[in-house]
Formats: sequence, C-alpha cells, structure tokens
Amino acid sequence: MSGCLPLVCAPGYAFAEPWRAALQAALPEERIVDLAALDARARADCEMAIVANPDPRELATLGRLQWVHSVWAGVERLVADLQDSPVQIVRLVDPQLAETMAEAVLAWTLYLHRDMPRYARQQAAGIWRAHDYVPPQRKTVALLGLGELGAASAAKLRAAGFQVSGWSRSRKAVAGVQCFAGAEELPALLAGADIVVCLLPLTPETEGMLDAAALAHLRPGAALINFARGAIVDDAGLRAALDAQQLAHAVLDVFQTEPLPPAQWQWQHPQVTLLPHISAPTNRATAAAIVAANVRRWRATGALPAVVDKQRRY
Amino acid sequence: MSGCLPLVCAPGYAFAEPWRAALQAALPEERIVDLAALDARARADCEMAIVANPDPRELATLGRLQWVHSVWAGVERLVADLQDSPVQIVRLVDPQLAETMAEAVLAWTLYLHRDMPRYARQQAAGIWRAHDYVPPQRKTVALLGLGELGAASAAKLRAAGFQVSGWSRSRKAVAGVQCFAGAEELPALLAGADIVVCLLPLTPETEGMLDAAALAHLRPGAALINFARGAIVDDAGLRAALDAQQLAHAVLDVFQTEPLPPAQWQWQHPQVTLLPHISAPTNRATAAAIVAANVRRWRATGALPAVVDKQRRY
Repeated sequence: MSGCLPLVCAPGYAFAEPWRAALQAALPEERIVDLAALDARARADCEMAIVANPDPRELATLGRLQWVHSVWAGVERLVADLQDSPVQIVRLVDPQLAETMAEAVLAWTLYLHRDMPRYARQQAAGIWRAHDYVPPQRKTVALLGLGELGAASAAKLRAAGFQVSGWSRSRKAVAGVQCFAGAEELPALLAGADIVVCLLPLTPETEGMLDAAALAHLRPGAALINFARGAIVDDAGLRAALDAQQLAHAVLDVFQTEPLPPAQWQWQHPQVTLLPHISAPTNRATAAAIVAANVRRWRATGALPAVVDKQRRY
Repeated sequence: MSGCLPLVCAPGYAFAEPWRAALQAALPEERIVDLAALDARARADCEMAIVANPDPRELATLGRLQWVHSVWAGVERLVADLQDSPVQIVRLVDPQLAETMAEAVLAWTLYLHRDMPRYARQQAAGIWRAHDYVPPQRKTVALLGLGELGAASAAKLRAAGFQVSGWSRSRKAVAGVQCFAGAEELPALLAGADIVVCLLPLTPETEGMLDAAALAHLRPGAALINFARGAIVDDAGLRAALDAQQLAHAVLDVFQTEPLPPAQWQWQHPQVTLLPHISAPTNRATAAAIVAANVRRWRATGALPAVVDKQRRY
C-alpha cells in the first residue's frame, strides 16, 4: 500500500522543499506533498504525516491522523502540542546524528581545552602570550545525558585522552565513564568537572536545571557547552556565573528563542561563543532513508516504530 | 660519573629557571646550573650542555664541549649556528610531544571543519545563519611532513573520519594515508586538499616552500594550518592567497620573527587565526626525564643518543 503523505513544517521553515525532495527520493512509491497542496478531502484521508516543528492547528486538519514522524530528534514542542491527543510521535533516531553530535562535542571541547577563545581575545588585543598547557588526562569532561548522544561523545572524548564523567536521570553504566545519577548526585558531578556538556532532552525535570544554584557547584574557571535545548539553562544564572568568572566560558548552540533576538546579551558577551543551532545538523539523505524504512514497514505491517513516551517526553 | 652541567638558554628566556628546576629534579646526581653561574675555569671543563636556543657565543665559552642536548624538537637555529663546529646536536624526541602536536592538529582541523572562524565573525556581526555541514568523510586533510608528528596526526584524523593524504621528501608508507613524495608530487597533494597542515622541519629545501606558486594549486576555499616554522610559508604569497579567497583561512602558530611584531598584518587579518607558538608546548617533566636518560647513558658509556644530521638539518 502507498499513497499521499503530507510534509508539515514550521511556518516559514527554509528547508521545507529540500526535505520534501529528499523524502520523495527515498520513497518513490509515495507522493510526498506540502500540506498546503492538499484540499480538505485529501487531508481527511491522511493517517500519517512527516513533520518538522509543525503548527498543531495544521496537524488538526488531518482527520484520521494516527502518527507523525519527526525528521528531528528533539520533539519537546510536539510532545507538548500533542500531549492530550491520541496521535503518536516517532522521533528521528539516526546513528549518524549521534556521530555528528559526538564530533561537535569533541570539537568544542578541544576548542576550550586548547584555550581558543582566550587566544582569539589576545589576537584582537595584539597580545602574544602563551599559557600553560594542561594535558587532557588531567581534565574532566562531564556529560549531562548518557543516551546515544552521550555514549558516542564519551567514546570520542576518552580516545582523545580526557577523563569523562556523566549524569543521567536513572543510573547507567558506560565503559570508562564515572557515572552519576539523579538530582542528588548532580552537585558532585558538577564539582568535579572542567568542562560540562549538556546533551539532555528538554523535559519538565530538566527545564531550568542549570540555574544559579547548580552552576555554583562548578569549580571557578570551568566551562559549559550547551548543545541540547536553551531552556535547560537559566539565562540569568548563566550570565551571573560568567560575570563572576565562576564560569570562564560558555559555548551556546541553543536558546530559548531561536533565532536568538538581536537584543539578547549572549551576542556580545566576551565569554560566550554563540552558534546558530549547528552542533548536529541532520543529514537529510540518511534521515530520509530512516523515515522511508519506517513508513514502508508501517505500510506493509501496520506496525509503528518505537514511539515517544509522552509522560517521559522523549 | 657525574658533575656540573650548564643550562644555556636564549637571552631573556622566561622559562630558564623552571627548566633548570625540572632538569635538576630529573638528574639529582648532577648539578644543573645556569651558564652565567660558572666561571671561566668551570666552563673549560664542560663536555656537554643542555640548551634552549642558546647564543652561540655563550656556547663558545665551553672549551671542551662535545655535544648539546636541546630541550626542544626544532633545532634549525642551532644547526645553522653549529654548522662548522664539531659539537654534536641532540634534539628532543618525546613521544608525548607527538601526541600533543597531533591533538593540536585535530583540534584546529575540527575548528576549520566546523566553521568556527565563520561563526565567530557572524556572532560579532549579529548574524544567525547556519551553513551546510559536510561530513569529514568528504574532506581531505593533507599533512606536509610524515615523520613522527605527521604519523601521530594522521592516526587521530583518520579516527575522526577524515580522508588523509601526506607528503614527505622521500616516499613513506603510512597506514590509511595517500602518500605523495618529492617536489614534483607536491602540486597534486595540494590540489586534492581541503585543509593543509604544515609539520615540516625548516631546511633550505622547505624554506619558502609554500609560496604563491604552491598556494595556487589549492582548491579555492581551502585552509592552511602552520604548526612548523614561519619561514616555510612565504608571507606575501600567503597574504595574496587569503585576499584572493584562494585560501579561506589560515591558522598560524609560527612566524619568521617571534613574538610577531605588532605591525605585522597577520594580527588584524580577518581570515587569520594567530597563535603564540602554542601548538605543542613541551611538557617539562617528560622532556626532563628524556634528557636525563640520555645524559645518564652518556655518563655511563660515553655513547651519545642519535644526533642531528647537520646536512639534512633535522
């Protein structure tokens, strides 16, 4: 069986057509169409949709919708929008995404480890000064989140010589990683870290988790990398920790509002490296192939892939 | 046998005393002294000295000098100064140094690969814009120099997923690396590279090797990392290649004159990342242990470690 599958993207999303084309190439037996191209009758027939941060009002026009497949891994907005709906959510689980995220974790960890922000400030100021080199064996990188992204990152950091610790809600065991679990062990993890990397999903428990109280556990001079979701970090607490030099530097790829509005302080802060949400860009080709395999199995057997737990929110 | 070993450093060198202390700790049976502390008679007895870019006139006061042990790996100045002298030169060969250099090669390759200079310019200009991500499997890093530094770097780059090519004066075989050799194969190496990393020793053959003609072989948009010696790159040719966008970016850790004088263009060029010679700082503890082992074997047997070939210059 096959048919017409709508693609429902965020309003104004710049990559809607590239996604449509990639999905169409991966699913030649289906007709992948922008939702706007479907009339009311065609919409009433749709049982599934492929989505990228859709407007929930648009999804509501699909009368027989059973499930949506996100082309992204982060689905906290979808979960909130569909919390009381019977529509099931499938998020993208792409091994390539974990590899790319782990590469980003290694790249920006080395950026901090090798003092690149400090040398950039020195270059701008015309200062020639070498600073002490501390080998990676004497630095601890703490990963917040020990799912597939955390595990892939830990492997690359260990290979680069770093000590690695990690934290998760429920206790995990990862080879070569000192594992902490639960709210009560978070202070100990933070106190032992030189660089903290946030890879957590955004849930009611993680929202605002890195606030002034949490950041106060860090050693003075520690650094933070946030590649997860902006709302996990409390912005006022972060700014205070940077201004007090409790936190030497922050690499921020995610923000409560994206694009980050021009007036926000992060743009100008000398201890912030600001990135436009690029740590782990989805590879459209590999992602489309994964979506295609899930759609085909569903067409053939009626079985859905693993769906998101709306209570846990990931 | 043991005795008094002078340490002869460059005039005004800031780390003379930390080196003396580290060497003394590694060689408790010797007396490691700053050359200035020795009178003419004590100097006349010295058969070896430990050196860090010494003034050759100071070395000349050591009447019975047979050999010097540099605490650094790069000895081109010593070789030039002692070209016509019977004094033998031993350079530091520290496996830890190759590891640290390989870490720097990986760190600044990832810096370029993940577009960090471009995102820094965007942050300064208040621009939120994501650029296409090209996976490392589709990028080639070309290593100039396939000695111990090149081999250690190649291993880390391969593990990170990059295609790796390499060039050396005489042909070498390195696992997983496409190897080029000799002046006639340099253009082909450069033409296939996205990122070129210079790790060559400075010799009459390599001086000015990366000039306008060589850089013209690069693909437009390629990048250069120089972690070797400033004089290997022709500054005027480099500047022209950057201004023409033939070269998108250069990471420069070494310069013809160091510290780089304030008036030099590299400080201000938006496509240059300037570093104060920090890619592979010597670890004084491990280096002192290596010097100590070499001195002890010489004291016990009279045998010198492998000495520098003054014709080849490394």
